[in-house]
Amino acid sequence: MLELGGETLILTHDMMAQGTHFRADADLADVAWKLVAVNLSDLAAKGAQPLGVLLGYSLGDGDARFVDGLGEALAAFDVPLLGGDTVRAAGPRSFGLTAIGRATHIPVPDRRKAQPGETVWITGVLGRAMLGFEGREEYVKAFARPMPLLAEGAALAPQVGAMMDVSDGLLLDCWRMASASGVTIALDSMAAPVADPARRDDCIRWGDDYELLFTLPAGTASPVPATPIGNIVPPSDYPLNIDGTDVATPKGLGYSH
Amino acid sequence: MLELGGETLILTHDMMAQGTHFRADADLADVAWKLVAVNLSDLAAKGAQPLGVLLGYSLGDGDARFVDGLGEALAAFDVPLLGGDTVRAAGPRSFGLTAIGRATHIPVPDRRKAQPGETVWITGVLGRAMLGFEGREEYVKAFARPMPLLAEGAALAPQVGAMMDVSDGLLLDCWRMASASGVTIALDSMAAPVADPARRDDCIRWGDDYELLFTLPAGTASPVPATPIGNIVPPSDYPLNIDGTDVATPKGLGYSH
Repeated sequence: MLELGGETLILTHDMMAQGTHFRADADLADVAWKLVAVNLSDLAAKGAQPLGVLLGYSLGDGDARFVDGLGEALAAFDVPLLGGDTVRAAGPRSFGLTAIGRATHIPVPDRRKAQPGETVWITGVLGRAMLGFEGREEYVKAFARPMPLLAEGAALAPQVGAMMDVSDGLLLDCWRMASASGVTIALDSMAAPVADPARRDDCIRWGDDYELLFTLPAGTASPVPATPIGNIVPPSDYPLNIDGTDVATPKGLGYSH
Repeated sequence: MLELGGETLILTHDMMAQGTHFRADADLADVAWKLVAVNLSDLAAKGAQPLGVLLGYSLGDGDARFVDGLGEALAAFDVPLLGGDTVRAAGPRSFGLTAIGRATHIPVPDRRKAQPGETVWITGVLGRAMLGFEGREEYVKAFARPMPLLAEGAALAPQVGAMMDVSDGLLLDCWRMASASGVTIALDSMAAPVADPARRDDCIRWGDDYELLFTLPAGTASPVPATPIGNIVPPSDYPLNIDGTDVATPKGLGYSH
């Protein structure tokens, strides 16, 4: 975060590495899209309006596909490419993107600001990216071409207690928000909207959905479509309580890398 | 370049790849320093004051050394680390850095603005990085720990016609400035200050010196220590003329990657 000329800038840099974030046989057009989308999702969680991106790119097979997908993403989100660099590297490739945005609301939403008495909300439906990754046709796009919730983030920014995007699974990101805020989240796991109720546990652990997790004062309606899934309670020994049971460790809650 | 709140932001993203920009046995503390320095050198050439950097980092051997060198560079140049990401990747590694700065003078200096009648200048002494790379003790630091000319760039910004930093060798970067400006540079190769006159040709072709190449109206003194090395003349068929001889191709002029 950077204050400049009366504006507050938000800067993010997320990378995607072959083997970790995408498979060797992935369409690089999808990888490029996702690289833009995950960075803009970070801006969305800060209620920021994107101003541009810079790309760090490892040359290799599929460069033309990458350029196609990059162009599609930049056009879809109306963001200019401001610069970047390329290298020629052997071995598995990794790509980096810096996104810069301007805060639309001060104070900038923060994952560390959840307070007891607030309600915990989540946008959208969880598990769509997981099902798409597994090949379920109606969800392939949710995995390959996620949409950063920029308008939703900006609408929420003036009202939220805490906010973050859910990239590594709902449970793990709830743990992180609660830990960062020094509170406990009491989660009603059955309240979380999931794409496949028979696999609820997987849907709330798998990541890549890029929904927004946020808190509002109890009794306040959400200004964007979202679902209340729990409450912020005073800190206990553990940051997360699921359906009445304390969670002792973040291990197994979601995707760590 | 980005206009925001009455300020003009300059953003750069340069990468360093093992095998291309550094050897597998390089001290990663030096690599980290250089990664910061080359990006800040891009800002220097725009007369910009650095505001912060974001890092994209491939984990592996020598991470602690990288962190040491990064910390030393950030302290030396008084620039904060604003964010970044890490990935774990097999194979040769590459690192990316985004630097953000604010323009200290509008219009922002540009390599495309050289005009006939101007004199071409260069700061410093060329070939120091080359000699350091080859192991000449007094120049090892010039190669491993280059200094971005931030103060010089800011002092020059209000006066220059065109400006750029010399990363890939004086001759190649003269070619690029002249091409970008649609003019011809008539260069007096004997005027260029070199660290080893017996190897003048190598000194003006090897890169990594990060000096500033700029133009001033004829008869104007440079506000920073620098040497006049030629003149901007009306465009001929070739962008570069060295000691009276047209140069037909940029091949062999410097370091291309």
